[in-house]
This record gives sequence, C-alpha cells and structure tokens, in this order.
Amino acid sequence: MSRLDIFINRMVSQRACLNHAAEQTADLPGPVFELGLGNGRTYHHMCEIMPGRDIFVFERAIASHPDSTPPDDHVLLGDVFDTLPAALERFGPTASLIHADLGGHNAQKNVAFARKISPVIEPLLAPGGLMVSSDRMFFTGLTETDLPRDAVPGRCFIYRAG
Amino acid sequence: MSRLDIFINRMVSQRACLNHAAEQTADLPGPVFELGLGNGRTYHHMCEIMPGRDIFVFERAIASHPDSTPPDDHVLLGDVFDTLPAALERFGPTASLIHADLGGHNAQKNVAFARKISPVIEPLLAPGGLMVSSDRMFFTGLTETDLPRDAVPGRCFIYRAG
Ligand SMILES: C[S@@+](CC[C@H](N)C(=O)[O-])C[C@H]1O[C@@H](n2cnc3c(N)ncnc32)[C@H](O)[C@@H]1O
Ligand code: NI
Ligand code: NI
Repeated sequence: MSRLDIFINRMVSQRACLNHAAEQTADLPGPVFELGLGNGRTYHHMCEIMPGRDIFVFERAIASHPDSTPPDDHVLLGDVFDTLPAALERFGPTASLIHADLGGHNAQKNVAFARKISPVIEPLLAPGGLMVSSDRMFFTGLTETDLPRDAVPGRCFIYRAG
Repeated sequence: MSRLDIFINRMVSQRACLNHAAEQTADLPGPVFELGLGNGRTYHHMCEIMPGRDIFVFERAIASHPDSTPPDDHVLLGDVFDTLPAALERFGPTASLIHADLGGHNAQKNVAFARKISPVIEPLLAPGGLMVSSDRMFFTGLTETDLPRDAVPGRCFIYRAG
C-alpha cells in the first residue's frame, strides 16, 4: 500500500464520516466545530453539506485556500488547549458535531496528542452530538460508533455523546 | 462539489492513470520520469507499482516526506525548463512513462504553464511511451488516449507517443 493509497483512504473516509455525521446530527441546534483548518478542504466540504449550520474553526495560523477561509467571527485563533476551554465557557456543552484532523506525520506524536486533547474536547459535545476524528481518541464518556460503509476502518473514527 | 470532492477525484484519477500507464508500458526498457515531487505521494506510488524500473524525479526544491525522497542520483534538481532539455541530451527519446503534476492553485496559470512545457516534454517519450498529466497538455505529435474506468474525466489526461 503506497502513501498515495493511504492518503486517498483517509480523505475518502473523512468525507464519508462527515457526510454520515452531518446527517445524524441534522436536528441538533448547536454549533459545529472544525479543529484544524489546514488547506481548508474539509472545512469547504462541511460548509457545503451543512449550509444552515454555524461552523466555527479552531486554528493556530490561518493558511487556507482563499475559497475556504472562514469569516473572522467564526475563527477561534490560537492553540486548541487555550481556545477549546474558552469555547466551553462561551458555548457550554452544545456542539452538535466536532471534526478533528490535527495530526501530523509522526504517528507516535499523534497518539500522545490525541491522549492530551481528548479530555479537553469531550465536555463540548451536546447529548447526541458526534465527534469525527482522523486519529483514535481517548474519551471516557463517549462511545465509539460504527463507520459508514464507504469509510476505511482505522482511517477515521466516530464517537457519540450521551 | 466541494474542494474535498475535487481533490479526492484528482488523487483517485492520478492513481488509476498511473496504474494503467505502468501496465501498458511494462515492456518498454526506458526510464520513468516524475515531474514535480511535492510531498512525494505519487512518487511513492510509482516506486511501488514499478519496482524494477528506473524512476527519475524532476523538482525545483525537494520537500517530500522522508519515506518518499528519491536517491540523489535519481533527482534532476532545477527548473524543468532547464532539466528536461538536459535530460533529452542525456537519455534521448527513451522515456517509457512521464507523469506530471506541476500545477498549483491557479487554473489560468496552470494552462499557460502546460502550453509552455508541452513542447519541452514531447520529444522525451519513446515510441509507445505514455504521458500522464493532471492538466490538459498541448502536444502536436502525441495522441490523447482513453482513461481507465476508475479515473474521472477532466481530472487526469493520458497521451501516447508514436
Ligand atoms: C502539486 S506538487 C506535486 C505533488 C505530487 N504529485 C504528490 O503526489 O505529492 C507540484 C510540484 O512541482 C514542482 N514544480 C512546479 N513547477 C516547477 C518547475 N518549473 N520546475 C521544477 N519543479 C516545479 C513544485 O516545486 C512542487 O513540488
Ligand atoms: Ni469552492
Ligand atoms: Ni512508505
């Protein structure tokens, strides 16, 4: 399996999980959080599949394609270890959908990061809310749920609150 | 269609066209050229599907994933407008497969670039050799060929010499 194969599987799985999670949470009123903007491709996709919903982006430094740059008042700029607790104060446990693609190339570092960030993400979700992640997370109160058929196991994870 | 959809279609089409072209040119003895290394994902894939073949990479500045960095003696470092004519002197018209993914985000610039680089690429191919490109090219002596079934029309192009 080449890096191209792995990358395609990851992108295809992200899309499948986002489509699935958007559908499942369509009736929840709370905001959607995108953790990590990067190039903005998944954000662009989220805007397209959730046109009526409020999407906030958490990012250290905006460097996205102009097509996929969120409005200023929907960016929470800074380190997620600062901006996620601030979001909890601001929004309470109301998020309907949280997507995270924060990892880099180092698998070991990604695991350590996922361990550290999981308890910071967990309290933000509304009951019934879903968390979609490219890395396995370490939640204590969320349940890992089945992937949609077109996702590749191990390339994406979905967790449900409540 | 989101930027994520378009990106997935491009990657999937690159893979399908590379697999197809590698198979079609398996009996040609000449080298394989990768124009534009980038992150190295397609190079990594080419190494995997063409293990016995000599793959040379043309790139201005190497910035690939460590997993996907070609050996020094298989890199032709510099602007392709210099290194491709040099390769013609060194190899003659012997390339069995040329893959190009040199474009950036600006579609208009990509078309202008494709127009300029097409006559520089064209003489390098061996008779029966194939050129796979993410952009439409402007060749005078090569024939555009059908795409494999799993490629998305418009996201990838294949041209045949002779
Ligand atoms: C889109 S990236 C290639 C991505 C690659 N196919 C992959 O899968 O990772 C394009 C690459 O072409 C290189 N490039 C663009 N124009 C070039 C030129 N005139 N001469 C040499 N390299 C060039 C850039 O430096 C960049 O690394
Ligand atoms: Ni767009
Ligand atoms: Ni590898």
